[in-house]
Amino acid sequence: MTRRKKKTTENAKVRIIPLGGLEEIGMNITAIETEENIVVVDCGMAFPDDATTPGIDLVIPDITYLKERLDKVRGFFITHGHEDHIGALPYVLREINVPVYGTRLTTALIRHKIEEADIADMAKINTVSFGDVIEAGDMSVEFIKTNHSIQDAAALAIRTPAGTLLHTGDFKVDYTPVFGDHIDLQRIAELGSEGVLALMCDSTNAIREGFTSSESTVGEVFDTVVQNNPDKRIIIATFASNVDRVQQIITTAERFGRKVCIDGRSMVNVINTAVELGLVSVQAGTLIEIGQLKDYAPEKTILVATGSQGESMAALSRMATGQHKKVSINAGDVVIISSTPIPGNEKAVAKVINELCHKHAEVVYQDTHVSGHACEEEIKLIYSLVHPHFTIPVHGEFRHRLAQKNIARQMGLAEDNIKLIDTGDVLELTPGSCELVDHVQSGPIYVDGLGVGDVGNIVIRDRQNLAANGIIIVPITLDKTTGEVLSGPDIVTRGFVYVRENEDLIEDARNVVLDTLEEFRGKKSKNWTTLKGKVRDDLSDYIWRRMKRNPIILPIIMEA
Amino acid sequence: MTRRKKKTTENAKVRIIPLGGLEEIGMNITAIETEENIVVVDCGMAFPDDATTPGIDLVIPDITYLKERLDKVRGFFITHGHEDHIGALPYVLREINVPVYGTRLTTALIRHKIEEADIADMAKINTVSFGDVIEAGDMSVEFIKTNHSIQDAAALAIRTPAGTLLHTGDFKVDYTPVFGDHIDLQRIAELGSEGVLALMCDSTNAIREGFTSSESTVGEVFDTVVQNNPDKRIIIATFASNVDRVQQIITTAERFGRKVCIDGRSMVNVINTAVELGLVSVQAGTLIEIGQLKDYAPEKTILVATGSQGESMAALSRMATGQHKKVSINAGDVVIISSTPIPGNEKAVAKVINELCHKHAEVVYQDTHVSGHACEEEIKLIYSLVHPHFTIPVHGEFRHRLAQKNIARQMGLAEDNIKLIDTGDVLELTPGSCELVDHVQSGPIYVDGLGVGDVGNIVIRDRQNLAANGIIIVPITLDKTTGEVLSGPDIVTRGFVYVRENEDLIEDARNVVLDTLEEFRGKKSKNWTTLKGKVRDDLSDYIWRRMKRNPIILPIIMEA
Repeated sequence: MTRRKKKTTENAKVRIIPLGGLEEIGMNITAIETEENIVVVDCGMAFPDDATTPGIDLVIPDITYLKERLDKVRGFFITHGHEDHIGALPYVLREINVPVYGTRLTTALIRHKIEEADIADMAKINTVSFGDVIEAGDMSVEFIKTNHSIQDAAALAIRTPAGTLLHTGDFKVDYTPVFGDHIDLQRIAELGSEGVLALMCDSTNAIREGFTSSESTVGEVFDTVVQNNPDKRIIIATFASNVDRVQQIITTAERFGRKVCIDGRSMVNVINTAVELGLVSVQAGTLIEIGQLKDYAPEKTILVATGSQGESMAALSRMATGQHKKVSINAGDVVIISSTPIPGNEKAVAKVINELCHKHAEVVYQDTHVSGHACEEEIKLIYSLVHPHFTIPVHGEFRHRLAQKNIARQMGLAEDNIKLIDTGDVLELTPGSCELVDHVQSGPIYVDGLGVGDVGNIVIRDRQNLAANGIIIVPITLDKTTGEVLSGPDIVTRGFVYVRENEDLIEDARNVVLDTLEEFRGKKSKNWTTLKGKVRDDLSDYIWRRMKRNPIILPIIMEA
Repeated sequence: MTRRKKKTTENAKVRIIPLGGLEEIGMNITAIETEENIVVVDCGMAFPDDATTPGIDLVIPDITYLKERLDKVRGFFITHGHEDHIGALPYVLREINVPVYGTRLTTALIRHKIEEADIADMAKINTVSFGDVIEAGDMSVEFIKTNHSIQDAAALAIRTPAGTLLHTGDFKVDYTPVFGDHIDLQRIAELGSEGVLALMCDSTNAIREGFTSSESTVGEVFDTVVQNNPDKRIIIATFASNVDRVQQIITTAERFGRKVCIDGRSMVNVINTAVELGLVSVQAGTLIEIGQLKDYAPEKTILVATGSQGESMAALSRMATGQHKKVSINAGDVVIISSTPIPGNEKAVAKVINELCHKHAEVVYQDTHVSGHACEEEIKLIYSLVHPHFTIPVHGEFRHRLAQKNIARQMGLAEDNIKLIDTGDVLELTPGSCELVDHVQSGPIYVDGLGVGDVGNIVIRDRQNLAANGIIIVPITLDKTTGEVLSGPDIVTRGFVYVRENEDLIEDARNVVLDTLEEFRGKKSKNWTTLKGKVRDDLSDYIWRRMKRNPIILPIIMEA
């Protein structure tokens, strides 16, 4: 594999089509399409939330656009191993089985995922090194070293007939990373001087001034806390995938003669993988299993756990609520929460902290984390090295991408050369132009249990309605010839009122339905649809007048 | 009314009983009880959230403890007019109609609430001035000027036979408030030198270092933004009750020759009330109605709106989503969000900001707000002036109260003299002791429509279950003599799958139930409870095996 400049022609075109990740956070996937080829950058999932997607397990992108152009798709090129960049692969590869390319840790994590999904045999996973260039028809993709909150993160330089596209992936500039090299600013500068048609740069932290601190600053915090608490057990919760964070915990532990125990399936998996790949430096005997914890004095251990976002099923939450089988929080334990809450998780994290405090643990949760994303000055640095002709801010909410737009303007880009687009938008670039030309099918698909896509917006709306108002079911059996009531009406409720204490209300509701049935019988009709509508309307009116509530009312008419 | 020292005797006792506000945020209400009297500090409500209390309109405290001691209750003494301190009064006064005491703005807001609740005639609302002392049997309550994010906030000095209790209410130290005096530190110091048995001090910001900035610093931000945007309409969203914030907007508007229009029912109400009371200084002609907006050039107006917390029905959200009848957001509008999200509202606020950005408004939302609560150094100041014998940190989550405990320790209080208690705990104080002696019924009561308390934890759990999994209803009509199936089984679902696209699944589910019925018939039993259980179990197993989902399954058996 060599670095080779693709020939650029005046009339050449390339299209950039984000199929996820812009209107919704996470679920990153972007198609880059020429006349004959498509390369896809990332293939992520999004996490659901209780209020807007109740009961949903995860959210994956609609890939109809790719399925309809199956023979053009050359591969998935993955920037790094976070779920919002790789999580949809187990679903998508079943339908689009093309090669997947990524760096060491990235492909190791992908392999683990597809083994769990039982499609390891068919999948074509390729591990590349930084500097490698993968040919993809009339395009090629070069992997460039960056820094992020997971190791082996890459920016992608995509050579197309219309010019070079540079996609930063999620990144920060870390001059003193815990492991490996700092971001390859040299190579990014070279690309800039060769000429970059369009930049796609991470906007997540674009509203924050200054620079993001180096990951290595967090290690100093760990050292200080452990040094100040020589007689206490330390528990540290962080993101399962942040190998460098765990590396620093290991380094601190070894410095102070403590053992390290990792708890939480996802973290054990990532760290084992990283150790196998040589991405973690650990002395023999430092890591112990959770079953061995009892063999060491608490103050000679550090427990590293998942659950720093307050996830109720993760290790830290189970410890905090006393539901963990092997670890209980003791008075005097020092718990470090080494993360900041992702928007939406604030209350869950606060709940865990309060529960730990109730158990007399000391909880340290301020200044214990650094971000993995570039702030304003780092973004400016990228613009100054790349000098892109066009720019398409990616990653982050609309307001964050808008903030990058303002940065791009400050860096001298003309208003017309900065494109803020949404999921599904089709942006067509030539060497001298960049225009929105189309909008294609795209967006979220809900996964619930084994069902992919069988829960759509109508079902979600029903769920929200059920949660807000509860349901009243009114079963009635009618004689199929005479229309006479054979059984019922009954009043069955869920999520409405506590029936045992509201028997009067239930009886009154039943009488309302009896009146409706009586009135309907007078009409000699057997149109049960009309009858159902009447029962629903009359009972709904009654409940609203009496209680100012709007439960779902579901009459069920059976004929016998 | 005079300041008078109550006689303190060695054996005298007083009990402090928080009936809300500690385990749950908001819903502040605390009983102070002697042998013969009870005074109650505040009577607030809490706001529900979609995930933990779906469909609930508001949450009020369980006041059983007070109802059982009705003839001892001397009155409600309200520290300030925020909903989490006055919001439950319309419900509670119906059951405990005792006098309510508060300062001007506080009682004006209470009067408005009870008029809406149609109990104004019976309620006994008394307006007091700072320095007033209200006798309450063997206790008395003195109102002391403080600063907070609403005017007329008070601390309460409660003289009891066992000694003086000082309750700060929600407060901050603002040396340069927008309206009126700064907190009466002099009087607090006097009380301190007279001797304070126990301090109950606001903990909300106890984890934040330093001092909270003065409210008046926000006015400078408004001035700058308006000055820099002479040709643009300005829209400012803030809390409805923050009169001083609106005052500063009015001052800025008058300085730059703009009209001010207030939009949002709750804010119009508060500001009208404040203007009537002379708490706002406004020139004739500055305030205009929303209908008059069209008569002025946009750049000559400032629109002040509710909805700074992303509330979907408030003015700002309706503007952002294009659902506001009178105001549409135009490209170039400058929108200032003058608040920070209350935990749990982060995503809703971000959504509104993104929508406004999409409409090409410029949104200013960083450094546009100051808190109304005291930070660490202000709390230390109070301890240094009061020198309390005991302290019971109040307001804020457990972790915040724990942070105040650490501050109290730094200020020299002995570990045993700092009491962290929960809602329902009964703390008994004598001049020399402070012990937890009991725990009483207390906690949240849910209000849903007109129903108060008819939605309890069982109903809430049903609602959460319905939202997460949906429901499958299986109606069956059986012959009451033979047990033969007369009609059904039908399969009716809500929130489970989109039925039209899953007809096979529904048919298969029906066959599972038919098998169960067939098997049951062989047993010649007519125990329909057993049959229901069997239908539920068999169908549940089937759905889990096929889909890995757990819908609520509700068999309904009717006899005909």
